[in-house]
Amino acid sequence: MDFKSYKKDAFYSYTLGAFPTLELIHKHPETLLKIILHSSFQNEDVLKQIQQMTSHCEIQINDRLISRLSPKENCYVLGIFKKYTMELNEKENHILLVNPMNMGNFGTIVRSALGFNFQNIALLTPCIDIFDPKVLRASMGSFFHVSIQIFSSFENYKKTFPNHEIHSFMLQAKQNLQHYTFPKEKAVTFVFGNESSGLDASYLDENSLIISHENNIDSLNLPTAVGIALYEYQKQKHS
Amino acid sequence: MDFKSYKKDAFYSYTLGAFPTLELIHKHPETLLKIILHSSFQNEDVLKQIQQMTSHCEIQINDRLISRLSPKENCYVLGIFKKYTMELNEKENHILLVNPMNMGNFGTIVRSALGFNFQNIALLTPCIDIFDPKVLRASMGSFFHVSIQIFSSFENYKKTFPNHEIHSFMLQAKQNLQHYTFPKEKAVTFVFGNESSGLDASYLDENSLIISHENNIDSLNLPTAVGIALYEYQKQKHS
Repeated sequence: MDFKSYKKDAFYSYTLGAFPTLELIHKHPETLLKIILHSSFQNEDVLKQIQQMTSHCEIQINDRLISRLSPKENCYVLGIFKKYTMELNEKENHILLVNPMNMGNFGTIVRSALGFNFQNIALLTPCIDIFDPKVLRASMGSFFHVSIQIFSSFENYKKTFPNHEIHSFMLQAKQNLQHYTFPKEKAVTFVFGNESSGLDASYLDENSLIISHENNIDSLNLPTAVGIALYEYQKQKHS
Repeated sequence: MDFKSYKKDAFYSYTLGAFPTLELIHKHPETLLKIILHSSFQNEDVLKQIQQMTSHCEIQINDRLISRLSPKENCYVLGIFKKYTMELNEKENHILLVNPMNMGNFGTIVRSALGFNFQNIALLTPCIDIFDPKVLRASMGSFFHVSIQIFSSFENYKKTFPNHEIHSFMLQAKQNLQHYTFPKEKAVTFVFGNESSGLDASYLDENSLIISHENNIDSLNLPTAVGIALYEYQKQKHS
């Protein structure tokens, strides 16, 4: 089978680099199609780990395929895998991103989410293609540790998870994150808007919160805002 | 004079887009060399603002120059300016970035810094070129509101600003940001390391703090870590 550079409608995607490829093998071995190594790859330790974990999966040395799939950078290990579907855990905290459009931002959010123990992420369409290699790269391998589920509307999300306490983060909110105390019993859903347009007024009544800042900037960068909200929540949880 | 696409050793740089160009005109009018408009630019309101604020500066319609300086995107306004030097205010809080290498990250940090009222940023060399148009774009115009000064070593920085209370942010730190109370009287300097290597052990004794997270990620993304630290500081200041 001939693998081509990534397309949204392809049934497969791939990781670039040893670290995310090991995370892929470790967390989703059943999706593996092929491991590609560059002929100059020499990390014995990584090679051993790959061989131990992928007894059922072909390992191939193929410099031409690597340069086709990874044209921009030095890449020595590449993991090709079948895309898979995930479902969010109804007992855990969620992040809900409304129409995220920047792949680097989304990967960065996944990384913070894993670090602050929010391992369930919902997206509302239209949104980025979560399996794009740019997302996987920006997530630094953390993509394979989280569950991501896509919904067509906020209503559908709420029907699926009616018991979460929702908090929308928006500049028009009346309550300030700095002074807010989260409930300790219920799972929460933190909702964030699109990079340029934020959340529309319909989200104001969802226990909305503002991360207040000086008004000489329009808004914080989206991954920064998500990071601050998750930090504050975990701080309260552990205090 | 013939303006070419940006080079580090050029004496000028430029903003891409109406919003950052207005910020440039507003905050550093004395550095303006030329305003370039695309022939299809039609925002009367912005045009009026530019004309009012730039009585001494040439405004030129030049589609070819715009496409040369901004090859990748639709850009209708471009502000060319002389690079300038800045000095940090010794009475205000500082951010000190050790060897930052990613221009998008730095621009994002400048945006958060302005939003959380840390308008003085020190950098240790080697580091990115702060005037690169990629930095200006990522900062969303906030670049022109802050002071940025470059130092060759941490010692030189400390000699220049001996009265700041320094806090280094690093994973090996013993004190946790979540449980730390900042002094209210003294100006602080928050120190962050390079994107891939962080801070070396020599910074451990600088009142080091950790932003704790699960250990399934290596570290938070740098702009996210900076945003969380500034948020926590401002939260304490306003409580």
